[in-house]
Amino acid sequence: MSYLVQLVLILVLTKLGAHLSNTLNFPSVIGELLVGVLAGPAVLHLLTPTSFTHYFAEIGVIVLMFIGLILSATSVSITVQVLKEMNHMNTREGAIILGAAVADDIMCVILLGICVSLFGTGAAAQSQSVGALALPKILFFILMLVLGKWFVPYFLRFFDKLNASENVATAALILCFGFAALAVSLGMSDVLGAYFAGLAISETSFKEKLALKIEPIGYAVFIPVFFVSIGLNITFKGMQHDLLFIGLLIIIAIIGKQFGGALGAHLFGLNLNEANIVGAGMVSRGEMALVVANVALSAHLIDQNHYTAMIVVTVITTLIAPLVLKLFIQRAQKEHSEIKQSRTKIDEVKS
Amino acid sequence: MSYLVQLVLILVLTKLGAHLSNTLNFPSVIGELLVGVLAGPAVLHLLTPTSFTHYFAEIGVIVLMFIGLILSATSVSITVQVLKEMNHMNTREGAIILGAAVADDIMCVILLGICVSLFGTGAAAQSQSVGALALPKILFFILMLVLGKWFVPYFLRFFDKLNASENVATAALILCFGFAALAVSLGMSDVLGAYFAGLAISETSFKEKLALKIEPIGYAVFIPVFFVSIGLNITFKGMQHDLLFIGLLIIIAIIGKQFGGALGAHLFGLNLNEANIVGAGMVSRGEMALVVANVALSAHLIDQNHYTAMIVVTVITTLIAPLVLKLFIQRAQKEHSEIKQSRTKIDEVKS
Repeated sequence: MSYLVQLVLILVLTKLGAHLSNTLNFPSVIGELLVGVLAGPAVLHLLTPTSFTHYFAEIGVIVLMFIGLILSATSVSITVQVLKEMNHMNTREGAIILGAAVADDIMCVILLGICVSLFGTGAAAQSQSVGALALPKILFFILMLVLGKWFVPYFLRFFDKLNASENVATAALILCFGFAALAVSLGMSDVLGAYFAGLAISETSFKEKLALKIEPIGYAVFIPVFFVSIGLNITFKGMQHDLLFIGLLIIIAIIGKQFGGALGAHLFGLNLNEANIVGAGMVSRGEMALVVANVALSAHLIDQNHYTAMIVVTVITTLIAPLVLKLFIQRAQKEHSEIKQSRTKIDEVKS
Repeated sequence: MSYLVQLVLILVLTKLGAHLSNTLNFPSVIGELLVGVLAGPAVLHLLTPTSFTHYFAEIGVIVLMFIGLILSATSVSITVQVLKEMNHMNTREGAIILGAAVADDIMCVILLGICVSLFGTGAAAQSQSVGALALPKILFFILMLVLGKWFVPYFLRFFDKLNASENVATAALILCFGFAALAVSLGMSDVLGAYFAGLAISETSFKEKLALKIEPIGYAVFIPVFFVSIGLNITFKGMQHDLLFIGLLIIIAIIGKQFGGALGAHLFGLNLNEANIVGAGMVSRGEMALVVANVALSAHLIDQNHYTAMIVVTVITTLIAPLVLKLFIQRAQKEHSEIKQSRTKIDEVKS
C-alpha cells in the first residue's frame, strides 16, 4: 500500500472514530485510538508500521505536546469538557483542577525527561558518572528557561517582520522542532523540548494567532497518525499474563489520583464533596499518558507488552474518569440545592 | 543529522531565502530554490536527500498543485505581482493573462499526465497495446470530472457535519491525497490528481475557509521541503556539456511564450503594445515548471543533467520575465499618457 493511501485511510478512520466517540459522549481520543487498534496488525491488518508512519507519528507526538499549552489542550481536556457540560467550570474546584493539571503536566514531562535520560538507551545515558549524567540535564532546563524567556519572543518578532509566506507559523514550528532536537542532543526526550517551546510561545502575544495556524497542521495531518500508530504498536499476544498487572495499574491509577487529589484539596480547606470532584478531575490522563507510553517504549524503558498494558489502562481510566466526575458533581450540586432549599425554608420560617 | 534538525534547517533557510528574494524584488521561489542548491550536495553539503526529505518533498509538490487553484496561486503568481505593482491588473491584458494562465496550467497538467503515462516507467506504462494504454487515462479524466462535480461537494458537507477537530481541513487533505493516489493507481501522475481535487474544491463554498487552513500546512511544512529538495537533486557535474542545450531552452522558452502569446492576443484585436504585455506575462512558469521537472525526473523521462538544465532555465526565465513585462507595461503606459496629452492639446486648441 502506498503511503498516500495509508495517510488517506488514517485520516478518514480517525475522524470517523472521533465523531463516533464524541457522539457516544466519550472523548474523541478513545475513538481515534480504537480505530488504530482495529486497523492495525492486532486485528484487521489493514495498516502496518512503515518509515512513513514512523516519521509522521513522531512529529505528531511532538506537535501534540507543543500545541498542548498554546491551545490549552492539556491532559485534562476530558475533565474540562465534563465541567463545561455540567456548568461546573467556574467553581473553585474547576479552577483548582485546571491549575493543578498544568503543574501536573509540567512535573510529568520533567520526570519523564529525567527517567528517559537516566534509564533509557539514548547516547547520553551510556556514560556512567553521575556528574556527566546530571550536567547536561541541568544545562537543558536552564537553557529552556533562558531561551524561552528571551530568545523565543525575539525570534517570533524577527520572523513576523520577514516578507515570506506563513512566516510566523513557520517560526513557531522551527521553535517546536528546534527545541525538540536540542532536547535530544542533550539526552532528553524530544517531547520535553517541544513542550517548553509551546510554554514559551503561550506567554507571547502571538499565542491566539498561532493557535489558528498550528491547529490544522496538528489535527489534520500529524496527530491522527500518532494516535493510529499507537494502535499499530499494540499486541494482544500474551496479554493474558498481564491481566493482573493491568488490573493493579487501573486500581493504582484511579485510587492514587482520586484519593491523592481529594486529600490535597481537603487539606487546603475544600469540603469532602468538592475535594472528591478535584480528585476525580485529576484521574483522566488522556493524551499525556499516551505520550508517556510512547516515549517510554521508544527509549526501551518498557517492552511492547507493558506498552499494550499502559494503553489499555489509559483507555479504561479515560472511559471511567468522566463517569466518576459526573457522579461527584451531581452529588455536590444536589447537596448544594438541598442546603439552599433548607436555607429558604429557614428564611420562610423566620419571615 | 536527525530529520528534525534537517527540517529546522530547511524551514529557516527557505524563509530567509524567500525574504531576501522578495526584498530584492525577485519572486520568493527563486530564493527558496537557491537556498536548496547552496545547502545541497552541489555546493555546501549541509543537506542530503533522505527518506524523510523524500516523503515531505513528494507531499509538498502534491500540496503545491492542490493549493494552486484554491489560493489562485498558479504559475503566473509572479506576473500577478508585477501587474499589481504597476497598477496594470484591472486592464484587458491583465484579465487575458489570468484566464490564459489557468487554461495553460490545465493543459500543461493534462499533457504532463499523458506524457508520464505513455513514456514513463510506471507500472501502467509497461503494457504495450494502445487500447490498454488509453483506456485507464480516459477513465481517469471522466472519473475526475464526475467525482469533482458530485462527490467532492458531498464529501465536504458530510465531513463538515462531523463532530471532530479540524474536520473540514482534514476532508480537503483526504480529497487531495485520495485523488493523487487514485491518479497513480490509474497510471497517471499524483500531482494531476491533486490538481483536479483542488479544482473541484475551488468551485465549492468551502474555498475561502479552506485556504486559511491549508496554506499553513503547505507553506510552513511541506512546500519548503519540496523547493529545497529540488536543489538537493541538482548536479553541476558535466553541466558544461549542456550549456548549449540550456541556452537553446532559454531562447525557446522566452521567444515561444513571448511571440506565441503576443501573436494570439494581436490576432484577437489587441494592439501591439497590449499584445506584447500578454506575451511577456505568459513567459514566467515559476512553480509549474518545477512541478513538471520533478514529475519528469521521478518518472525517468529525463536524467539528472537535463533536470538540472530545466531548473536552471526556470530560474533564469523567472528572473528575466518580470523585467521584460515591466518594460512593456512602462512603454504602454507612456504611450497611453502621450495619447492622452495630445488629446488634451487638441481639446485645448479646439476650445
